[in-house]
Amino acid sequence: MSVSTDLFARPAHNPSFFEVSAAAPSDRPLLDFCVPVNLHYPKEPLFAAIRDRLDAITKYYPDYAEVHQAQVSRLIRMPADTIVVANGSTEIITELVRMADGPLLTCAPTFGQWTDLPREHGVAIDYLMRRRERGFRLDPHEIVQHVRAIKARTLVLSNPNNPTGAGMTLEEIRFVAYALGDLSTIVIDESFIDFSDLESAAALAVRSDNVVVVKSMGKTLGLHGVRLGYAVASGRRAEVIRRRLPYWNVNGLAAFVLAYVAERPEALRASLAATAADRDAMAAALARVPGLTVFPSAANFLMVELEESVSGTALRERLLTRHGIFIRECGNKIGSSSRYLRLAVADASAVSRLIEALRMELLA
Amino acid sequence: MSVSTDLFARPAHNPSFFEVSAAAPSDRPLLDFCVPVNLHYPKEPLFAAIRDRLDAITKYYPDYAEVHQAQVSRLIRMPADTIVVANGSTEIITELVRMADGPLLTCAPTFGQWTDLPREHGVAIDYLMRRRERGFRLDPHEIVQHVRAIKARTLVLSNPNNPTGAGMTLEEIRFVAYALGDLSTIVIDESFIDFSDLESAAALAVRSDNVVVVKSMGKTLGLHGVRLGYAVASGRRAEVIRRRLPYWNVNGLAAFVLAYVAERPEALRASLAATAADRDAMAAALARVPGLTVFPSAANFLMVELEESVSGTALRERLLTRHGIFIRECGNKIGSSSRYLRLAVADASAVSRLIEALRMELLA
Repeated sequence: MSVSTDLFARPAHNPSFFEVSAAAPSDRPLLDFCVPVNLHYPKEPLFAAIRDRLDAITKYYPDYAEVHQAQVSRLIRMPADTIVVANGSTEIITELVRMADGPLLTCAPTFGQWTDLPREHGVAIDYLMRRRERGFRLDPHEIVQHVRAIKARTLVLSNPNNPTGAGMTLEEIRFVAYALGDLSTIVIDESFIDFSDLESAAALAVRSDNVVVVKSMGKTLGLHGVRLGYAVASGRRAEVIRRRLPYWNVNGLAAFVLAYVAERPEALRASLAATAADRDAMAAALARVPGLTVFPSAANFLMVELEESVSGTALRERLLTRHGIFIRECGNKIGSSSRYLRLAVADASAVSRLIEALRMELLA
Repeated sequence: MSVSTDLFARPAHNPSFFEVSAAAPSDRPLLDFCVPVNLHYPKEPLFAAIRDRLDAITKYYPDYAEVHQAQVSRLIRMPADTIVVANGSTEIITELVRMADGPLLTCAPTFGQWTDLPREHGVAIDYLMRRRERGFRLDPHEIVQHVRAIKARTLVLSNPNNPTGAGMTLEEIRFVAYALGDLSTIVIDESFIDFSDLESAAALAVRSDNVVVVKSMGKTLGLHGVRLGYAVASGRRAEVIRRRLPYWNVNGLAAFVLAYVAERPEALRASLAATAADRDAMAAALARVPGLTVFPSAANFLMVELEESVSGTALRERLLTRHGIFIRECGNKIGSSSRYLRLAVADASAVSRLIEALRMELLA
């Protein structure tokens, strides 16, 4: 085992890029399939604007919450008072977990924060396993049955799901929400929905007493370091969540990025469509590699299954140390294993390099 | 009254700079005495480094907490496990308030978050009034007596205090901490201490069961938009606080700034000393203006008292709309009034322009 192995010993999330870079060959740039990005968002004009305004971005206290709410409202066309803007979706997830009535039911595998935080904050948790034979899609009837069986008070669904990429239609979400109108909270985490044709449950959340939509903006833009996310809920519930968050939780850079993006919704939308096209091309290319099974994805990543005889952790090590390619395997995710890789969507040339390396290592 | 008045109707904090700019004359740059800054920190090399690394700063998830703790540890020479790094000191203040046993005793006037948040989060609060005849300094014996009289379980002291600038010696803090060793928590908010000769209570906090030091880094650097602060406490208590905060709460820009500053402690120290010298020069210059009383300050702002006949709110309006000068009056602070201005330390030419405008308006 190489020196990099212990970087991956953390629960549920990948190590930081800065830690990993040191373990890769130094003769070429590290190719990153771990962090899902949006290659088509025109970052250079945004970065130029940031460089130009760095003094104002860093010097002043950020605006108050309602300014950010108004920007998100422009972008998603929901009323500003139903929106809670946060220091990344993780800030809202943490708060929702701290407020949650247990037991909390979520699916597995899913985003690590939804499986780790309930345990860390003492909320009883149970898992609805996503089954391979269903392409990791959830059955709405089974969700309702499982909620009732364990007397869950909080339900968390990620749509599309991370790392499987499987989505639920709005009709399925509506069915679940109506059947479970008595639950304390139903969270729909739509952090990756912008890359899909799936319809958001935001309008449902606004009208509902217990549905909360959670959304990462960093994931949509591929700017995870900026820390920007939001929730949509009824005005009353949004106010309850908002009052628990710190003032000035949205930093100056995140506020600037939000305002910039809200001003130019077309550029964002075009970039999402282009990323979705990249995903489809990448899925088709990977599906042609012997020994890989690629699952349908509505997100900007693909879940790929290795053959039973292949060790995903060993493959990840070899890709990193021999090829300078950084991938995510799902061995540290509850309900998954090292047989599954989550590969962030990349452009055709990066995908070619990945496929060449995979062919070499899988045949070896 | 001008259109700008309603911008100031918020509890305890000033409106955002972006809101205020619109109300000032447009023929010259707005001169800002509201936001305390550090004019001597060499921001341009830092900004150049940020511009250069913007892709990495924005793209990746920030590092985990221990990386940031190690940087603060380098800077303040306290053990990394006793440090909690946060999205601005306000994130820690919010968490400490949410965890607080009431009644909570703080002084007044003080930083608005310490007076507003207990009320917003349902923690009983009482105020120890800072008295003009003592130069707004607190008497340690009186603190202990007041705590006992109201059976306070949590005590919050800001050192030096905002907006008065008054400080407490480490001996005074030690006296209070030893006398109140049975309290649930004693918070010392040292957000402005770097501009003073006062000794930090961080070493006391590390050894103590109930003392927590809170520190804003944004205030030290004059980079409030970056959102960077930390707490120092015993390893055990630091862990309790840290576990309640969201992962990746320190954004990529804040993490970069922290690492940059920790690498160059000398530049920071020199800038703090130069700002302290500016403050002393500004205090002397303001003291020569008839009708102003300037109080001794250990921070990067000065509290100034107007004569009883002068309306601080009207003066603020006139300075903004006629002179393009933005000041903070303390009418919205519990325990203060519009007779008191908090003026951020500025360079000699800005101070000259302020004094000229003050002379004109105070004689009018």
